Amino acid sequence: DVSSIDSKTSHTTHTFPGLVNIMAFAPSLLAGESQDMTDLTKASVRGGFVAALVMPVTASGPAIVDSASLDAAHAKATGAAHCNYAFSIAATVNNATSLDDEIQAESRALFLPFASGALGLATVAQHFASWPAGKAIVTDARGSDLASVLLLASLHGRSIHVTNVQSTDDLLIIKLSKEKNMPVTCDVSVYSLFFTKEQFTGASSLPSLDEQKALWDSLSIIDAFSVGPSPYDVAKQLGSAATAWSGVEEAIPLLLGAVLDGRLTLKDITLRLHDNPVQIFGLPDQSHTHVEVILNRRSPFAPQSQTWSPLAGRTTSGSVHRVVVHGQTVFLDGALFTTPIGRDISAAIVTKPLDRTSRLSFT
Amino acid sequence: DVSSIDSKTSHTTHTFPGLVNIMAFAPSLLAGESQDMTDLTKASVRGGFVAALVMPVTASGPAIVDSASLDAAHAKATGAAHCNYAFSIAATVNNATSLDDEIQAESRALFLPFASGALGLATVAQHFASWPAGKAIVTDARGSDLASVLLLASLHGRSIHVTNVQSTDDLLIIKLSKEKNMPVTCDVSVYSLFFTKEQFTGASSLPSLDEQKALWDSLSIIDAFSVGPSPYDVAKQLGSAATAWSGVEEAIPLLLGAVLDGRLTLKDITLRLHDNPVQIFGLPDQSHTHVEVILNRRSPFAPQSQTWSPLAGRTTSGSVHRVVVHGQTVFLDGALFTTPIGRDISAAIVTKPLDRTSRLSFT
Ligand SMILES: [Zn+2]
Ligand SMILES: [Zn+2]
Ligand SMILES: [Zn+2]
Ligand SMILES: [Zn+2]
Ligand SMILES: [Zn+2]
Ligand SMILES: [Zn+2]
Ligand SMILES: [Zn+2]
Ligand SMILES: [Zn+2]
Repeated sequence: DVSSIDSKTSHTTHTFPGLVNIMAFAPSLLAGESQDMTDLTKASVRGGFVAALVMPVTASGPAIVDSASLDAAHAKATGAAHCNYAFSIAATVNNATSLDDEIQAESRALFLPFASGALGLATVAQHFASWPAGKAIVTDARGSDLASVLLLASLHGRSIHVTNVQSTDDLLIIKLSKEKNMPVTCDVSVYSLFFTKEQFTGASSLPSLDEQKALWDSLSIIDAFSVGPSPYDVAKQLGSAATAWSGVEEAIPLLLGAVLDGRLTLKDITLRLHDNPVQIFGLPDQSHTHVEVILNRRSPFAPQSQTWSPLAGRTTSGSVHRVVVHGQTVFLDGALFTTPIGRDISAAIVTKPLDRTSRLSFT
Repeated sequence: DVSSIDSKTSHTTHTFPGLVNIMAFAPSLLAGESQDMTDLTKASVRGGFVAALVMPVTASGPAIVDSASLDAAHAKATGAAHCNYAFSIAATVNNATSLDDEIQAESRALFLPFASGALGLATVAQHFASWPAGKAIVTDARGSDLASVLLLASLHGRSIHVTNVQSTDDLLIIKLSKEKNMPVTCDVSVYSLFFTKEQFTGASSLPSLDEQKALWDSLSIIDAFSVGPSPYDVAKQLGSAATAWSGVEEAIPLLLGAVLDGRLTLKDITLRLHDNPVQIFGLPDQSHTHVEVILNRRSPFAPQSQTWSPLAGRTTSGSVHRVVVHGQTVFLDGALFTTPIGRDISAAIVTKPLDRTSRLSFT
C-alpha cells in the first residue's frame, strides 16, 4: 500500500478510520423475505463504512417500536450482517411508557420520527422524560415540528441530533441553538449536497438549488454526513429501482469529488463520517480498522445491483480502495472478502475515551 | 360604603386594587374618525380597569409598527383617554433594526403578532436580539409557531408573555416551560373561560368545550386574564355589532359569577387582573386606586352601546360598584364621572418595588 503525501496536488491515496453509516436505511427491514440486512451491510463495507446504525424506520414507517420488533430486527441481522450494526427504537404515541430498561439498553438511540406524521408535543415530552440521559435522541423533524422538538430538548436539558437537515429555516434554528450552546448536532444527507430538485424533476426529497447552496455555506454547523432514506426516496420518486443499496456506495465517491473540487477537505469527511458520529452515538472504536481511498484517478462508477444510481455510467475521481477491519482486508479493489460476522453494537458500552482528535492517518 | 366580611356566604362587597386591562383591543385605533381610545378607556373604567395596555394590532392587523404610527396612536389618545393607557409596538419582518432607543423607551412591550400571518424564525430571532432586556415581549403565537417563539426566547434567555392561550397543546408547552423554570407567562381571554364554540356556532375564536375544560384545569399556570380581541372577533363571526366596547364590561361580572360558583377565588382575580399584570409589564402602581364590586346581588347586565354582548338581557350576580382613582370616585353605580385625563404610562418607569403580595383589601 502506497502512503500518500497529504498535499492537494500530489497525494493519490488517503486512509480514513473506519467510517460510520449513521443513518443506514433498510427499506423493508422486517419483511418476511427481506435480505435488507445483508444488502445494507454489504453495500456499507463496499462504501467504506465499518458500522451501520440502522434506522428504526422503514419505507412503510416506524418499524422497530417495541420488544418484539427489536427482536425481529436482531433475528434479521444475525448471520446476515457483513459489518457491525446497531438498532435504534422509534418513538410512537404509545410506547414512551413501555420502553423498559432492557429495550433502552439494547437500543443505540431513540428516534423521533416525523416524516410519517407528526408526533404530538405531549408524546415527545413523555419520551424526553423517560429516555435515559446520555443515550442519543435523533429526529427527522422539520420546520415548526423541529422547533417544538428543540424546545422540549432545551427544556429537558437533553442533547438532540437532527438528521437530514435540508431547509434554510432548519439550518437557521440549529445555528441559533448551537450559538446558545444548546447540545444539538445535525447531519445532512450526502445526496442533498450533490443533487437538487432542479436536476431531477419530481425528486421532492432533494433540496432546491438555493437550499443546497445554504447547506454548503453552513458546513461549519453540520456535524455529520448521512446516507439516510433520501437515495431510496429519490429513486422511488423518479420511478426507478430502489433498494437497501441505494446511495450507500455513492457517498464516498461524491464526497471525494468535492475534496478534489476544493469544496471539502479530507478532515471535513473524517470529522463527519467518523469522529463526530462516534461521539454523538457513543460508539466503541475498532482498532486497526481503516478505509483507504484513492483520489485523482478516474474510474467508472459501477453500481452493484439492480438499483438506480445517479452515478451509473459516470466516472468518479475518488473511490474506496481497501477496507481493513481489525487488521483483515474485507474489501479490495471492488471485491468483498467478508463473511456475515458483523457484531451487534446496539448495546456496546464505550470503554475507552472517545477519540475527539482528528484521525487523519497516513499509514 | 358597607365593608364586607370576606366569607363566601356573607360578604356582599369586595375591594380590588385598580385592575389592568392588559390586552385592550382598539379595532380601528388609527382610522381617521376613530373614537376607539375614548370608547375603550370609558369601557375600561366601567369594567373596573384603571389602566389599558393597548394592543398594537387592530382589526386590520399590525398597526403600531414605527415612529409615525406610534405618534399617531399617542395623538389619538391625548385628550381622549378616560384611564391611564400604554402603547406597545408590533414586530414586523422589516422593523427589527428600525426600532430605535426612543421607540423602545416609549413602548410598553414588543408584540410578536402571528394571528395575521406567521413571522419567520429569522425575524423573531432578530427582534429577540434587539429588543431591550427587561422590557416585556408578548406573542399571540399558537401551536408550532408558539414552540418556535418559546425556543427562541429560551435560547436568548428572554422572558415572554403568551396571550390568549386556548389550545390544550399550547397549555402543555407553557406548563412544560414553566416546570423547567423558563420565564414564560400567559393569559387567557375571559371569553375563553365562559363561552364555547359549541354555544355559539360559527364563533371560531372561542375554544371548544374540551379546550375550555383544560383551561379551567390549568388555572395554576395561567398568570393573567385578558379581554383581548376575542369578544370583538366573536361578535364579527356571529355577524353582530363589534366595537372597542366588546367584552370589556363583561369581564368582571363573568369572573365574579365564577367566584360565586366556587370555581375562582377573589384572590385568583386579584392576581390575574392586578398583581401579575403589574409585574409582567413593569407597571407603576397607583395609590388610593380601588375597584369595589358587589357580589350576590342579581342585576340586569346593561350593555352601554350598540355592541353585541353575550350577556345582553341576562342578569349577573356580580358587578362593578365603584371605581376610585387617586381617591376620586370615577365610576359609581353605572354612572361615569371621568374627564379624558388618562395619562400615558407607555414609558413609565417603576419607581417603587412591585407589589407582589396579594392585595385583598376590606376597606
Ligand atoms: Zn492499496
Ligand atoms: Zn491524505
Ligand atoms: Zn474510530
Ligand atoms: Zn492499522
Ligand atoms: Zn358603595
Ligand atoms: Zn371580599
Ligand atoms: Zn396596584
Ligand atoms: Zn384608598
